[in-house]
Parts: sequence; structure tokens; C-alpha cells
Amino acid sequence: MYNYDVEAFLKEGQEVYGLRGTIEKAVDEVCANGVSKVVLTGVGGTIFELMSIKCIFDKYSTYDCILKNGAELLVEQPDWIDDHTVVITGSKSGDTPETVQACKYCKERGAKVIALVGTEDCPLAEYTDYPIVSPIPGMTHTYFKFNLIALRMIYNHGEFDQYEKYADQCKDLYSAVVAIQEKFEPKAEEIAQKYSKVPYQMWIGSGIVWGEINMFTMCILEEMQWMRTRAATSADFFHGVLELVEKDVPVYLVKGVDVYRPLDERAERFLVQYADDLTVIDLQDYVLPGFDEEFAEILSPLAFNALTRGRLAYLFERETGHDLNIRRYYRQFKY
Amino acid sequence: MYNYDVEAFLKEGQEVYGLRGTIEKAVDEVCANGVSKVVLTGVGGTIFELMSIKCIFDKYSTYDCILKNGAELLVEQPDWIDDHTVVITGSKSGDTPETVQACKYCKERGAKVIALVGTEDCPLAEYTDYPIVSPIPGMTHTYFKFNLIALRMIYNHGEFDQYEKYADQCKDLYSAVVAIQEKFEPKAEEIAQKYSKVPYQMWIGSGIVWGEINMFTMCILEEMQWMRTRAATSADFFHGVLELVEKDVPVYLVKGVDVYRPLDERAERFLVQYADDLTVIDLQDYVLPGFDEEFAEILSPLAFNALTRGRLAYLFERETGHDLNIRRYYRQFKY
Repeated sequence: MYNYDVEAFLKEGQEVYGLRGTIEKAVDEVCANGVSKVVLTGVGGTIFELMSIKCIFDKYSTYDCILKNGAELLVEQPDWIDDHTVVITGSKSGDTPETVQACKYCKERGAKVIALVGTEDCPLAEYTDYPIVSPIPGMTHTYFKFNLIALRMIYNHGEFDQYEKYADQCKDLYSAVVAIQEKFEPKAEEIAQKYSKVPYQMWIGSGIVWGEINMFTMCILEEMQWMRTRAATSADFFHGVLELVEKDVPVYLVKGVDVYRPLDERAERFLVQYADDLTVIDLQDYVLPGFDEEFAEILSPLAFNALTRGRLAYLFERETGHDLNIRRYYRQFKY
Repeated sequence: MYNYDVEAFLKEGQEVYGLRGTIEKAVDEVCANGVSKVVLTGVGGTIFELMSIKCIFDKYSTYDCILKNGAELLVEQPDWIDDHTVVITGSKSGDTPETVQACKYCKERGAKVIALVGTEDCPLAEYTDYPIVSPIPGMTHTYFKFNLIALRMIYNHGEFDQYEKYADQCKDLYSAVVAIQEKFEPKAEEIAQKYSKVPYQMWIGSGIVWGEINMFTMCILEEMQWMRTRAATSADFFHGVLELVEKDVPVYLVKGVDVYRPLDERAERFLVQYADDLTVIDLQDYVLPGFDEEFAEILSPLAFNALTRGRLAYLFERETGHDLNIRRYYRQFKY
């Protein structure tokens, strides 16, 4: 696979899996303190990753779980954050201003903060009770860690008995990731060659992967490739967005593996008839091997991320010649 | 004002205001039955209107209020809907399939349904306990009715003492609407003449008007004008979308009148420096006259709707020559 050191990735994966004990200890301590509410916060890519974690909490637990953009939390100044509130967040750089300030606010109100950070001495760590420290970047790693935090919390709440089995199966997560990436590679090559220079494109999907569709379209295609992109849920698609389906507009439909799949299938029935340039990414074809079937939904955002951020982004980069690290504005100066 | 029968609008307004008694009676009955949860549901424009109603419930009440797309509710089949659940919805046509089926589902589980409908015998009315019937279309009317339902419920919950004052002041709502539309008209003319034929545009905003920004961009610009449009919250804007700000991309910034305004101001500081074609619509300049200041936030989505759907849409239509009623696909055939 192009521009991909698989050996290094697998080695990193083992190292990240090694955080399991640290994560479980942190979560167990936080749960022992009693939990009134779970707040998932962050900005940019993090809040999109946490959208799938919100789906996990809502489906598997009775926790009162609130997803809240860090910048919005700061202006809302919620008074219901107390010393039994658990805040889950992360920042790749460790210094994302909105996230750092949001955690400061929550911590001052007594909340317990669990944060994924890169180093122990980053600004975010200062307002974190339980820093999960790992210098290894990569969003599949982020999903692994967030999933484990959420599911361990739910397990401690008596609501996800399968936890140990799930966490044990994660031991081979990274080779499973490489397996689906290898399967996807020819399709990714085809997409990149056909559609890397279009003026406008659409991404449609729903359910637990919707956050990750936002992630890929906003944080990768828009931010890192400056591609004009319209992301819409399979439900919203039928109420406005569909009118923009026309010749030379590539449409990507992501079919999920959760209860929302019928909404994706409805969009597919429409699109196969009316979209000239339709690409269907059916996550049923990219279920991570080595896991029980019941975990496919939980892992589907991670799988989609592995295919898109992990592979398609690099192939787009190669075709467009637009370095993924170049920004016009973001973090280029103070604003 | 172009293509606008103000007299007819004011007359309709009086008629719609006449629904106040019907709405209050329906809400009082529903509240007397006891309320465990409030579910705001619908699809398309309705779910975007209800986003602002969710903000009202969250700010002014302690009700457990859930916003749920009708199509998604149907696949989720929530088991927590019971005979003390109140469903608030609406459908202009009265036959929107997802909304009709969602209400059927809720009603079968015992929920009480309040729905804005056009006629008493539409399919949606069949699954509605309290139909609020009015044949007069228009989204400012819809906001008037939804606001009244929500605020009366909150008043009955002992949490919005100002209800009578608010509802009384609504008597002159429609002349207030016309006043801000007149003030906006020269700006709308300028926008329409400059930007009606651009290939791509951006709309940024936050808080209680965010739903209405989605409404205007998805249901009007995309659906009715086939304009490629990117809507983003002022918070998200800084994490990807900003990279698409470049020459010849019109950017509209909507400054709200709620606690999220600092987020809009942050976007403004960036945009005045880096966007060549920036249009700021500051809702502080279009506060509806005749209302106490404390109601400005509640009414700001209605005000923004009056300016955009009520005026700008018609001026775009005139400039593009693209009839607002023409659709490629939506409701043109079965899909």
C-alpha cells in the first residue's frame, strides 16, 4: 500500500493496546467516585469522534450522556456540571484552546476529567485528572482508546457484560485494520484517480458512522485538501440535498452496519438511479476480522476511519499534489 | 418590497394569531395528563425549526426534551416512549411519510401528539391527538405556533412566568416582521444582485438560529435554488471549513443575540481579515419591535426566517430566474 509502513503501524498498535491497563484503572477509579453525568467534549475532529462514543453510551447504557462542543460549553457555562460529572475528551496537540478552557471550567466545578493527550506536560493535562498519555498519533488509536473508556464505564455500570471479551479481541485490532485496508486499497485507488480533482462532492451516511463522515469531510477533505464537500445524513439527504445530485457530482454513500442501515439503503435506491458518479462504501464489506459479530457496529467508525483517513486521504494527497499538512489559516497565526 | 403582498400577510398573521386559544387549550390538556418527556420530531425543514424549539426547552425548562429526526426515530424504535410522552411535530403538506409513520409509532405507544397541520383530514392528523389546523402556509407562522406550544408547556411547568406577556405581545408580531423586512430589503437586494450566481457559498452561525441557518441553506438554497452551500457553526468553522475561505467565495455570517454571540464575533474577527466577500447579518439589527428585550433570543430564528425565507429567497429567485417551486426530484416521483 502506498506511503504506508505497515510494520511500524502494527508495532504502534501493540504499544497503544498496552494502554489498556492504564485506561481500565482510570475508569475504575472514576466510577468508584460515583457518576451523575458523562460529558463528551472537544472541538474539531475530537467532537466528531465523540459523536460515535455518544451512540455507544446511548445504545448500551443508561448513563446521562451529553455531547457538547468545547467552544459552546464555554459560552453556555452549564451549571449542572458537578463533582460526579465525568468529562471525556482529547487533544492531539494537547493545547487546543477551546478544549483546554472547557476542561478548566469543568474541573473548577469539580468534574473528573479523562483526556487523551500526547504528553504528560501539555496544557490540557493540567486540567486532567486521568491523562491517557501516548505520543503515537493516529485516529484509529484514538477510537480504540475512546471505545475502551466508554465500554469500561458501561461495564462498571452493569450494562456491557461483554467488556472483557471485547477488550481481549482488541489485542489483534491492528492486524484486522490492515486486513480491511488491504481489501479497500484497489477501490481507494480507483476513487482517487477518478475523483481527486472534482470541484464539489457529496458524502451521505447515518448512524454511528455519521460523526466520522463529518470528520473525514471537514477535517480531511476540507481542511487538508481544500475540497468543497457536502456531507448529509441519509435522512436529511431527501429533504434538500438530493436536488444537487447532477452530472459530474461524485456522490459517496456509506452504508453502515447498525439500525440506520435502512436509511442508507433508501438513499442507495435513489442514487443508483439518479447519480452518475456513485461510490458505495458498504461497511458490511469491511467488518474487522477477529471480532464477534456483535462488536461490528461499535467498531464501524474506526473501520471507516481506517479506510478513509488511513488510506484514501493519502491517495488523494498523491493525486492532488496537495500536502495533507499544508494549511492556509489553521494554526498559522493568531485569530 | 418585491413580490410581497404585505396586506395579505398581515391579515393572515391575525388569523394565525387567532389560533392562540386552540394552542393553549391543547397544551393545557396535554400537561394535565402529566408529561414525562417531550419529543420534537419531523423531517426536513420541520426538524430544523424544532432545533430552535429544543433550545427554548433547554434554556427555560427542566423538561426532558429530545429532538429526533422522524426517519431516525422510526429505525431506532425507542422503547422509552410512553403515555406521558408528548410529541410535537408538523408537516406543511400533512403527508410527509417519515413524520406520519413516526407519529403512528409514538401514538401506538401511548404518546400524545400535537401537530401543526394544514387540514383536519390529512394523513398526519390521523395520528394526532391535538391537531393545530391552519391552511395558511409560511414559516414565520410555524415559528409562532411552535414557540407558543413550547412556552405554554414551560409556563404550565412553572418555569416561564412571562408567558402571558409574551403571548400578548405576539398580537403585533406580524407588523413587527414587516418592519424588519423593510429594514433588511436594501441589503437583501444588494446580496441578491452580487451573489445569486456564485458556484459555492458559506453560511456561518450558531446557537438558537443554527437550525434556521440549516433550514435556509438546505431547504431553500439547495432544494429550491440548487445552490451549492456550506453551512457550518461558528465553533466548527475554525476546524476545517475556514480553509475553504478564498477569493470569490461569498461568506455569510449570522450574528445571533444569545450567549453564543461571542463565537460569531470570533468568526467575524477572522472573516473581516480573510474573506473578500463577507456579508454580516447581525440579528441585533433586526430585533422585532414591540417585544420586551428578554424575548429577542426566542424570536431570533423567526426574525432570521422572515429576512431570508421571507425576503432573500424571492430576490434570489428573481435574479437566478429559477422558480422556487421547481424540483428535480423531491416529490416528483416515488423513491
